[in-house]
Parts: sequence; structure tokens; C-alpha cells
Amino acid sequence: MPKIIAINAGSSSLKFQLFEMPSEEVITKGLFERIGLDNGIFTISFGDEKETIETDIPDHSVAVKLLLSTLTEKGIIKSLDEIEGIGHRVVHGGERFNDSVLITDEVLKEIEELSELAPLHNPANVTGIKAFKEVLPNVPAVAVFDTAFHQTMPEKSFLYSLPYNYYTEYGIRKYGFHGTSHKYVSVRAAELLGRPVDQLRLISCHLGNGASIAAIEGGESIDTSMGFTPLAGVAMGTRSGNIDPALIPYIMEKTGKTADEVLDVLNKKSGMLGVSGFSSDLRDIEQLATEGNDRAELALEVFASRIHKYIGSYAARMHGVDAIIFTAGIGENSDTIRARVLTGLEFMGVYWDPALNKVRGKEAFLNYPHSPVKVIVIPTNEEVMIARDVVRLAN
Amino acid sequence: MPKIIAINAGSSSLKFQLFEMPSEEVITKGLFERIGLDNGIFTISFGDEKETIETDIPDHSVAVKLLLSTLTEKGIIKSLDEIEGIGHRVVHGGERFNDSVLITDEVLKEIEELSELAPLHNPANVTGIKAFKEVLPNVPAVAVFDTAFHQTMPEKSFLYSLPYNYYTEYGIRKYGFHGTSHKYVSVRAAELLGRPVDQLRLISCHLGNGASIAAIEGGESIDTSMGFTPLAGVAMGTRSGNIDPALIPYIMEKTGKTADEVLDVLNKKSGMLGVSGFSSDLRDIEQLATEGNDRAELALEVFASRIHKYIGSYAARMHGVDAIIFTAGIGENSDTIRARVLTGLEFMGVYWDPALNKVRGKEAFLNYPHSPVKVIVIPTNEEVMIARDVVRLAN
Repeated sequence: MPKIIAINAGSSSLKFQLFEMPSEEVITKGLFERIGLDNGIFTISFGDEKETIETDIPDHSVAVKLLLSTLTEKGIIKSLDEIEGIGHRVVHGGERFNDSVLITDEVLKEIEELSELAPLHNPANVTGIKAFKEVLPNVPAVAVFDTAFHQTMPEKSFLYSLPYNYYTEYGIRKYGFHGTSHKYVSVRAAELLGRPVDQLRLISCHLGNGASIAAIEGGESIDTSMGFTPLAGVAMGTRSGNIDPALIPYIMEKTGKTADEVLDVLNKKSGMLGVSGFSSDLRDIEQLATEGNDRAELALEVFASRIHKYIGSYAARMHGVDAIIFTAGIGENSDTIRARVLTGLEFMGVYWDPALNKVRGKEAFLNYPHSPVKVIVIPTNEEVMIARDVVRLAN
Repeated sequence: MPKIIAINAGSSSLKFQLFEMPSEEVITKGLFERIGLDNGIFTISFGDEKETIETDIPDHSVAVKLLLSTLTEKGIIKSLDEIEGIGHRVVHGGERFNDSVLITDEVLKEIEELSELAPLHNPANVTGIKAFKEVLPNVPAVAVFDTAFHQTMPEKSFLYSLPYNYYTEYGIRKYGFHGTSHKYVSVRAAELLGRPVDQLRLISCHLGNGASIAAIEGGESIDTSMGFTPLAGVAMGTRSGNIDPALIPYIMEKTGKTADEVLDVLNKKSGMLGVSGFSSDLRDIEQLATEGNDRAELALEVFASRIHKYIGSYAARMHGVDAIIFTAGIGENSDTIRARVLTGLEFMGVYWDPALNKVRGKEAFLNYPHSPVKVIVIPTNEEVMIARDVVRLAN
């Protein structure tokens, strides 16, 4: 049976999942960590087994070679020939890519050029692409972009009200991220609702350590909370989300930091970590709030209330909503955040059942049967979307 | 009859309105321009007369003396003794002032200290206060703050998700502006609805060259779109409103501008001016859009869609809304912007009548009678709020 491998490469990491298609069964998955550093770690799961190997992994090519030799040595696959396609997650596709694409030399060059818009992510994605190309030069590879799903946004959604030449000359616009996840849950929601996705208005809440909300009308993203970068929108684990832009010069003056240093604070020391002063991990904050800590409680309120307001905003954007979807770590698992987000939306037809909301990590409807607006938990699966796109494009 | 003068002092201007109280009749009003510059202009209207005097006005004290002598010379008042109180608009009251206040030496010092938060506005307001104090030292003076009405916001609304010490050490939080206007229209809406304001959930859209939206529950502001400064929130005539904060370092790098220079672009070259590339004046842009100009049309769409989304957001914030209010230049006069903002809110109970929407510059309901949510145009009147506060506090 044909097998497809889905890859998510970071600067010092590489995640993989091997799918059998078209069954979409996950045959094995795992992770390389500390690539290029001392004490590399390679973790792989298959069947009921999980192995962790500690070994130096000098670069991504070494990781890929180790992965492939392990696949055959463990008998997970009989021969490398079974791998019929490779799908690479790429963070930024700019305005160039509104869909996944078969990677040619020209495409690879364009992805490298887009590093300007995602300097922390695209270069790492390119490293992953090149490593596989070196080891499996004849297997088709597909790039799947976090931004592509949002390329359907109309100009009134993606344009900032800045001098127009900032858009035409510097590419300054809203791109949006988590597109593969938003697309997966919107397709899956349509299946669960038994309705064609092109007849639905959906609000997708991808709530992980990064968090974004998308308004999806007729299967297309028409607005999303992240912006030019993944900093914008709602408050997150360590990211501020939207703030008054005038605060950046003010913080620079008050703290003596440069603009880049302030940006670093907004990306890494803000969000729930900044408000709580304690942790960026929702579970830690929920625990502390339960113990009566006011700042932890405030962090939860700030996090949830911004999402709650985005739901109202995007319902207005689509002139109503048919279903609200929760996904990613927090969205799938935190009933308390979901409860805070959903409370008080009856005015727009959202009636949810606290008993159903107890669910963790699996697909479930949270609404009362009579609720005009449905509420659905859907565990996200970006990897399977990548595998599907490889099948679609590699032939 | 007692008379109260309401003052709005800018760095080179001074606006005034003289009220007879408690009738709230405007006896005279006018404006000094180009104070401290060559070719000062003094304009005053009373009864059916309007006079414009061109004369050098070296400072605000000269303006005040000229005003008072004109009032008696023209017989508008018989004696300066009739002026029983002076109300000064002050932009920033910080967290110190949650209501208007009788101006003492201590209060004046505090307003001066708050100049750090409003460097363009508070110093000018202080100049106006001092000028009247010099000329009318024994007449009680009251400060009325743009921020005071929003001091009822709970922490989850006003706190940015930044490191918490930025709030405690530097006063970084959402303050909100246009408070006197939002308060006036909320009080007036309750009168027009024949319901106590403390039972109402109102969304007030103050749409002028500056624009802000407020969520007003039970007569108290619980959220508003402007932030630490009046730059935040919706797109405006020349202001960007919210953007991805990461754009500031990016624009700095691309254009070679300093952070303060970028801030200047966001305040003065963005908004509808930036998008249209033509004008910050809505009337110009509407005209151009009518002639088929795409960028003008886009500017209108960007402006209106952000407001539309805030209405959804604030309805969610209050778990529903009883009335939506439009005020200030654009809100009172532009039926096309109101139509764009209101279209598609039926899902939350907003049914408005295009025929009623033709109104300009006067109080009117725009909703169909059966609409659960009412829509009201209310011309704002910050000056009368100032006069009322003087009466309340000067005794």
C-alpha cells in the first residue's frame, strides 16, 4: 500500500508521521529533538512500541537517514520504495501560494524568499525539505502552507488601514496562520453536521499555546485573528495578541529596550504568562486559579474573554454562524476555558450543555439538540491534511 | 440666571460654549484659532449673529480676556459675575479620576503629571485652565475627563496581556477616550427608550475623525475600542487602529524610520487616508467611491467592517444588546456608513429601516418598530455634559 510521510521541521527538531493511504492509518510517528546540538533525542512509536534513542544528530540529513534506516530495520516498511510522497509543513506561503504545491527547484527558491516574512520558521522548513531531497531525491515532495487556507480572505479583511504602498511594496497585510488546522476542522465539522461545507458559516477556535480564530464561510476562510505574524489576535500562552500599537514606543522609552527587544517581550513574556506572572501553560494556571490565586484567575479571564469577543465579531462578519468549533490542546481539553468562552452567547443562538462540555480530546457536540448554533469539539489533525494533499498533488 | 462656560483648549486653539443653566440653552459659542501664531482668528456666534475677528492672540490668557470683554461689550452677559462656573475638557485623567472634579491646586498638579500619558493634550488643557484661573480666579472650575467614564471597566477589559508589572509600574492599560460623548449618548438613549439606563445594554459608536466604540452596561462603560492612547481600535480618518504589533519593527526596518516616526505614520497617514491615498475626510471618500474609485470604496469597507465587527464583539461582551447608538460627525450624518455597519446583524436582532436611515444630524430611531434591538442616531453634546458636571460639582 502507498505510504506518505508528513514532516514538520523546526530549526533543531523534526516531527514525522507515516500514513498508509488512502486508509489514513498512522503506521508510525515520532520526533527528532536537539538536532545540531549535543545529546540529540530520537523518539519513534509504532504499534504498541515506543523507543527513545539518544545520539548526536549533527544535522537534518542525518536525522532523515536515521529515520529511514530505522523504518526498514524495524520492519515498519519493507523498502523505501513504499514511500510514495513526502509532505512538508511550511509556515509562510505569502500571497504566492494559495494551495499546497509540488516542490520544484523554483518553488523551493520561492519558499526561501518568503523567509523574510517568517524568519524563524521558513528557513527551518527549507532545511527539512532539502534533507529529504538529498536522501530521497526521486520521491515527490509537497509543501503545505499554514497561510494558504486564508488566502481566500477578501481585501477588506486582510488589508491594514496603513498607507496602501506598505501593502504593495512590503507585503504588509494579514496572512493568518494555523490554516491547515482550520481547514481540517471545517471539513470535519461539515461531515459531522451532515451538511455541505459550502453551505456553512463556521467559527473555528484553534486554541493551543498559539491561538487563532477563523471565520469560515462556504468552506473558505474570510477572516482570521492572527495577522502579518502569529503575534496578533487573541492573548496566547506567551504572546500578547493585539495591543495598542502606540505602546511599543512607550515601552521602549520606559524600559530602554529596542523595538526588537520589545517584540521579544510581546512574543515570549506576555499572554497568560505575563498576566499570571507564573506560567504559560493553561493547566498550571487553571490549577493556581482553583487554589484562589487572583492573577491566575485574571489570566484565564483575559484569555477567554478575548476569544468570546472574537466569536461575536466573526458571527457579525458572516451575518450569523452555524457552528463554533474548538480544537488544539486547550480547545480540545479545557472544559473550563470552553465554558468561559461560550457563556452568554444565547443572544446569537448558542445553547450549550455543561454536561456535554466535560469531554476531553475527542469529537463531541456540546450544544443542546435544539440549539440553532452547534458547538463541536474536533481534535485537529494537520498531518492527515498534509498526507491528503500529497496524494492529491503527487500524482 | 446662572451661566456656565464649557472650554476645550488645544495647544493653539480654544473652543467655548456659554450655557444658561438649568435650561441648558446655549447663549453663545465660538473658537479661538492660531493662538501664539501670527494671524489669530476669533469666531463667536450669538443669537443670529456670527463675528470673525482677526487679531494676534499671543497666548491663552489673551484669548480668555478677549472672550470675556467681548461677552460684556456685546451685551451677551451684563457682568462677569453671571459666570458661576467653568468646565474644562481634559483628555487624560488616568486612573486617578473616575469622575469630573473641582480643580484645586492639587488637582491641577495631578493633571499636569498625567501629561506623560497624553503629551499632546493634557498640557494644552492645563494652559486653558491656568488662563481662566488668572482672569477669573474666584469662579469655580471643574475638570471633565475623556477617560473618566471608562474607569468602570473591569480588569479583564482594561488589562493588556503584557507582563503585569507594565501595568503596575508604567500605568500601561486601556483607558479609553470620548468618555463624555459616550456617557451623554447613553443617558440620552435611556431617555429616548423610556427605560432606566441601569437596565440597558448599549453599544455606542462615536464616529468622527477619531472613532471609538463603547460597550455600556447598566450605565457604565465596561469595554471600549480605544486603548492606552486614542490610536487603538477601529480604523479612523488618519489613524490605523489596531494592527499586528510586530509590524512596527518591520516597518522600521523596511523604511528606516524610528519607532516614533512609525507611530506618526500610524496616527497621521493611516486609516481612511492611508487606504484611499486621497483624503481622511469621509465625505471626499464617499464622493470618490460613488465615482467608481476602488481604493475609496475599499477605505469605506475597511472603516465600516471594523465597526461592524466591534458591534458583534460588544454584543457578545454584554450577552446581548438593547440598542446601538450612532453619534459624532460620521455617525450622525453618513447614512451609507451606517448602512454598511448595520447590514447583516439580523442574527442578533437588529432590524433597521433604510428609509429611516436617511436622517442626518438629528435624533432618530432607525429600527423597525418590531426590532428587538433598537438603533438610534443621537447627536453628541459633550459641552452640555461639561456644563452639567460644573453645576453638580461647583456648589
